Amino acid sequence: MRVFVRKMSQIIPDLPEGPLDFYRKKASFDWKKLKVFLDTEEIVKYQNDVHKELQKLSIFKPNIHEGTFDDFRHKSTMQYLHYGDIDLLKMENQFEDLKRPYAALRTMFQLTPSSQIKHSVGDNLFTGVIRTMGTERHQHYADDSADAKIFGCFCLTEIGHGTNTKGMRTTATYDKKKKCFVFHSPDFAAAKCWAGGLGQVATHAVVFAQLVIDGTQYGLHTFLIPIRNPEDMVPFSGVTVGDMGEKIGLNGLDNGFLMFDNYEVSRECLLNKIADVTEEGEYVTPFRDPKKRHGASLGPLSGGRVNIAGVCEAFGSKALTIALRYAGVRKQFGPGDEEVPILEYQTHQHRLIPYLAATYVLKNFNTFFVEKFFQMQLDSIFGNNKNIGPDLGIEIHAISSGSKPLAGWLMMAAIQQCRETCGGHGYLKASGIGDIRNDCDANLTYEGENHVLIQQTSNWLLKFWPQILKREKIATPLESANFLSNGLDILNSKFSCRAEEELRRPENIMSMVQWLVVYLLKETHAKLENFPKDETSQFWAKNNIQVYYAKDLAVAFIEHYFLKKMLETINQSPDGNIKHVLERIFSLYGLWSLQKHTTVFYKGGYASGPNITDFIQNQVLKLCSELKDDAISLVDVIAPPDFILNSVLGHSNGEVYKNLQSAIFRSPHAMSRPSWWQDIVNWKYKKSKL
Amino acid sequence: MRVFVRKMSQIIPDLPEGPLDFYRKKASFDWKKLKVFLDTEEIVKYQNDVHKELQKLSIFKPNIHEGTFDDFRHKSTMQYLHYGDIDLLKMENQFEDLKRPYAALRTMFQLTPSSQIKHSVGDNLFTGVIRTMGTERHQHYADDSADAKIFGCFCLTEIGHGTNTKGMRTTATYDKKKKCFVFHSPDFAAAKCWAGGLGQVATHAVVFAQLVIDGTQYGLHTFLIPIRNPEDMVPFSGVTVGDMGEKIGLNGLDNGFLMFDNYEVSRECLLNKIADVTEEGEYVTPFRDPKKRHGASLGPLSGGRVNIAGVCEAFGSKALTIALRYAGVRKQFGPGDEEVPILEYQTHQHRLIPYLAATYVLKNFNTFFVEKFFQMQLDSIFGNNKNIGPDLGIEIHAISSGSKPLAGWLMMAAIQQCRETCGGHGYLKASGIGDIRNDCDANLTYEGENHVLIQQTSNWLLKFWPQILKREKIATPLESANFLSNGLDILNSKFSCRAEEELRRPENIMSMVQWLVVYLLKETHAKLENFPKDETSQFWAKNNIQVYYAKDLAVAFIEHYFLKKMLETINQSPDGNIKHVLERIFSLYGLWSLQKHTTVFYKGGYASGPNITDFIQNQVLKLCSELKDDAISLVDVIAPPDFILNSVLGHSNGEVYKNLQSAIFRSPHAMSRPSWWQDIVNWKYKKSKL
Repeated sequence: MRVFVRKMSQIIPDLPEGPLDFYRKKASFDWKKLKVFLDTEEIVKYQNDVHKELQKLSIFKPNIHEGTFDDFRHKSTMQYLHYGDIDLLKMENQFEDLKRPYAALRTMFQLTPSSQIKHSVGDNLFTGVIRTMGTERHQHYADDSADAKIFGCFCLTEIGHGTNTKGMRTTATYDKKKKCFVFHSPDFAAAKCWAGGLGQVATHAVVFAQLVIDGTQYGLHTFLIPIRNPEDMVPFSGVTVGDMGEKIGLNGLDNGFLMFDNYEVSRECLLNKIADVTEEGEYVTPFRDPKKRHGASLGPLSGGRVNIAGVCEAFGSKALTIALRYAGVRKQFGPGDEEVPILEYQTHQHRLIPYLAATYVLKNFNTFFVEKFFQMQLDSIFGNNKNIGPDLGIEIHAISSGSKPLAGWLMMAAIQQCRETCGGHGYLKASGIGDIRNDCDANLTYEGENHVLIQQTSNWLLKFWPQILKREKIATPLESANFLSNGLDILNSKFSCRAEEELRRPENIMSMVQWLVVYLLKETHAKLENFPKDETSQFWAKNNIQVYYAKDLAVAFIEHYFLKKMLETINQSPDGNIKHVLERIFSLYGLWSLQKHTTVFYKGGYASGPNITDFIQNQVLKLCSELKDDAISLVDVIAPPDFILNSVLGHSNGEVYKNLQSAIFRSPHAMSRPSWWQDIVNWKYKKSKL
Repeated sequence: MRVFVRKMSQIIPDLPEGPLDFYRKKASFDWKKLKVFLDTEEIVKYQNDVHKELQKLSIFKPNIHEGTFDDFRHKSTMQYLHYGDIDLLKMENQFEDLKRPYAALRTMFQLTPSSQIKHSVGDNLFTGVIRTMGTERHQHYADDSADAKIFGCFCLTEIGHGTNTKGMRTTATYDKKKKCFVFHSPDFAAAKCWAGGLGQVATHAVVFAQLVIDGTQYGLHTFLIPIRNPEDMVPFSGVTVGDMGEKIGLNGLDNGFLMFDNYEVSRECLLNKIADVTEEGEYVTPFRDPKKRHGASLGPLSGGRVNIAGVCEAFGSKALTIALRYAGVRKQFGPGDEEVPILEYQTHQHRLIPYLAATYVLKNFNTFFVEKFFQMQLDSIFGNNKNIGPDLGIEIHAISSGSKPLAGWLMMAAIQQCRETCGGHGYLKASGIGDIRNDCDANLTYEGENHVLIQQTSNWLLKFWPQILKREKIATPLESANFLSNGLDILNSKFSCRAEEELRRPENIMSMVQWLVVYLLKETHAKLENFPKDETSQFWAKNNIQVYYAKDLAVAFIEHYFLKKMLETINQSPDGNIKHVLERIFSLYGLWSLQKHTTVFYKGGYASGPNITDFIQNQVLKLCSELKDDAISLVDVIAPPDFILNSVLGHSNGEVYKNLQSAIFRSPHAMSRPSWWQDIVNWKYKKSKL
């Protein structure tokens, strides 16, 4: 045991002594041991090595005062170029241990989200599309991209169309004589937009356009075309391309727009793995059903959604580290003359600790899910997935369509609470929380607007209802829906806790969530059945079952899966203390989530009377209170190092006031008189002289 | 009738024709008539005149691209100086009609929040403190301030203490020999901070410091001291003052910090209306109880809270105007080939329309409440309030301590929904929503952190419980708590709606909210009674009844008052159409708010079974759907003119795509190659040469 502890001290440095020791000494568990348990020793070492590499490069030194918009954009681009050179962050190196991609993603999104997106788009998505949609003739683009000779972006969304991908209006018309495609944007609403990297740095673009041959439309197809000259970055004639301008966040990333004025590109630009046009203008595809071809062409996007739940957790962990460390140091009021840390207050605990629990549960899910996703990708590339069939991909799609929205909503709410619980000082840019919120905000929208995307999850679940009625065995590759096999029994269960303390037991929480999912599935299905079966009615039916039904169903289902994965991890705990604190986290997240659905328990007859409400409320408050002494050590486990956290309120030394003083004093306009001071001297008098 | 309509067209210009006509033509009411009804003809004219004045001055032209932090700060300061010259905005002019202050506040917070705060602090709060706390010897400061010879700020908060005002550590020690006060800050945690205008423009400061005479502490007192030389803006020796640096929002405002190093100021700097120190160092005060003196010295702050609920509404109205106009124009998906506006979707309606209803209810409350507050102030100045006594002030304090937090939470949530429902384009800075969110965010914190402040409301309500038990008549000046007279009968009432349609009736909604308030009052009181009566226990008791009890009680009470005031307005509707749409707004806000408390109805035995949940949910969705064709005209009523709204998505012409094109094309870095383009050409090759 002593050997084990010494080893951990070697790979995880001690945190500086200071005001946070008050809580750190109270922790019920060994935070280094928990970190190694959750992340694995290999990943902790990998992350340490990545941190060392990053710290060597001055371009990654955080700077609170970024200068102008253009300075920030430039710096962000240089960061992107530099970390393309860090070997440990390269895909092939990440794939040595499939827990690495999530670890790398977390670190880079916490340090430089804009450059990380540029990297994801230019290096992963662009080459991924070439691999999945292109053929031999496109391979050289991937090589040039790896050699940083070109930069490729991904253009799907148009100004007038985002979520409804089929409605895109950019056309690629085949010209038989010239043997080329002619790209055209009918108007600005059809301009491609939002593509990351398109604004300033892209030389090539993957473009989704409606294929037209001889006046016949063949639907959306994928093309790879040059847009700017890589030698001088000047756009080609026929291409109007530019930057979308300042955004709420992520301003290091150059999101762009792109329009075509009868722009001609040779026939080979069509990414022709799933459909081709011959020189003579004949359309060839193995897909008979255009819907399936359309689906296949959007396949590369699902990785984004899997990752985004991780991105949200990365942002949430940062914000909670800041807010909880601040809460452990900031004192205000007290029973006598002595003031107490604000973390001691019930309200403060209730505002933050459930989100801390949610972050743990989410991180645990992501660790599993991102690894699973990359495993599936590798298996697909190496042909190891012949016996699995498409079910795994479909289940990953269904889960990620729900986990991405839920993660986004949870973490945005967490970040907002962190901002508010840090009071006025949380409103300083130097607190870091404003940037975290502004950057995280985009996750609710890109790669599928949350409210639209989550319909994919409920649609998938609704298909199980007939099987449930027939008591058929339901077994999905990731086992997320297996419990539905007992759907009818679950539906007949009732709230059975007689004492408050029973409620927090994992089996009771799981029973309650399972009832919730099955009940909402039954009700949602019944709502849908009420509508006529014609296309128009069904279109509106799908829309009119969302609020209170389909969306809540999807959310409850994902909550159930989060809890299930957490329980599997708890059962492997290396010691009793760790098991105990993780169980509290599990129970708090579970009950706090269930609480939002309490009305459904009453409505559906699962419970009546005050007990269920009282029990849940009391247990949520108790668990918050039980976890408050562990809260600082719990954030130490998930916190990035200080150079990445970059917050005056959240530094691991807990010296909030010293850090504030230093940050405020060194800010550029802190103590110098403004250059325009003469404008404010005796204004009235001067004005009368005008 | 025709004459009336023509008159309204004269004072309210028509909105431009365009894509929004689709919904504008469907509206069930005359939007101009509703505007005149809610605002009064006088206020509409007043606002028009203010708009005209503002448009004459180029400094108020909005600019999406503000340049550097310092440029923005400078511009904001110049705006402040200029609008001090707009006669209509002067206090004496506003007081001609007590509906004007809210109208002016709304406009200025929507146009230039940073300069408005500078104005509120420097021109209203500073002079207000002189009037209420100072004596004849301080009057010349108010005159100099009005003449813009000096600028005064208000320094209460310290780096280490905000909400707990009694914990402030800056000292003012009387030196009998020199007959002066010596100001001193023991360390940076005791630095005054966050004061608006202190960072760069203040020459004088109202400073709260612990008074010390001969080693004896006399508690917090208020001083008015010079800090910078008004001739050259250089700080006086012994004063360290500066700007706090970049913030999440409101960056036009120079929030500052202030430290003293044994800084001497003559004895007259004490604002000596409620306590004085004689030349010989004798302490004189008419207040025997230091707590009461402390309370009196913080009196001038309550106006801020009354106004902030209005500020939140001003921000929320802007965001909802943007999001709803966008929702009326943006099309995506549809049952056939034709796409439908996203406002047609149930989810979209449910995400936005309840917040629109909340904004109407809040605006109606503010119109009443701000006027009432200023009336009380005027009565106090002119001595007209002798027969009212302190009860009105106490009730205004209790209500504003709850309405400020509730307004802030509601409107921040509304703004976030607006950001998300505008999808990717809502993430553009040009949408305006990011700045609205960042600026509004501060309302949750300043002038009393929301969760701490709202305890004042529940504390006030708890005092009524013994009266309720004795069935005593409860009558408060603003009648907010009068219904508690029947508390015991209300507590015995049960949910009695037999049909869904009954639920939306005002009398049913009011009954439900009243039951909720009384039940939560009873339960909160019972919780409190469980604790021992010693000081320490009571301190923790007050903290440990907040979640689920005291806070929910305060929220429900304020919701009730919002609804009561709305009902009074509805009853004066000028025509049936207006009455009808306002009733829907009332019912939607009421039921949507009640929905958040549904669990309490079950728990408290007010209802059981599925009806109450089903009825509320169905009615909320129905009301959203019934209001969707009115939504555009409803935002037209509360929208600021386009030059103030300043949003590419929210312009009243509805030409979203044209406006987007124009904004994106003219943004500074849109189509020019970045100055650093050579850095991104052939990066790998260049790096290998290094």
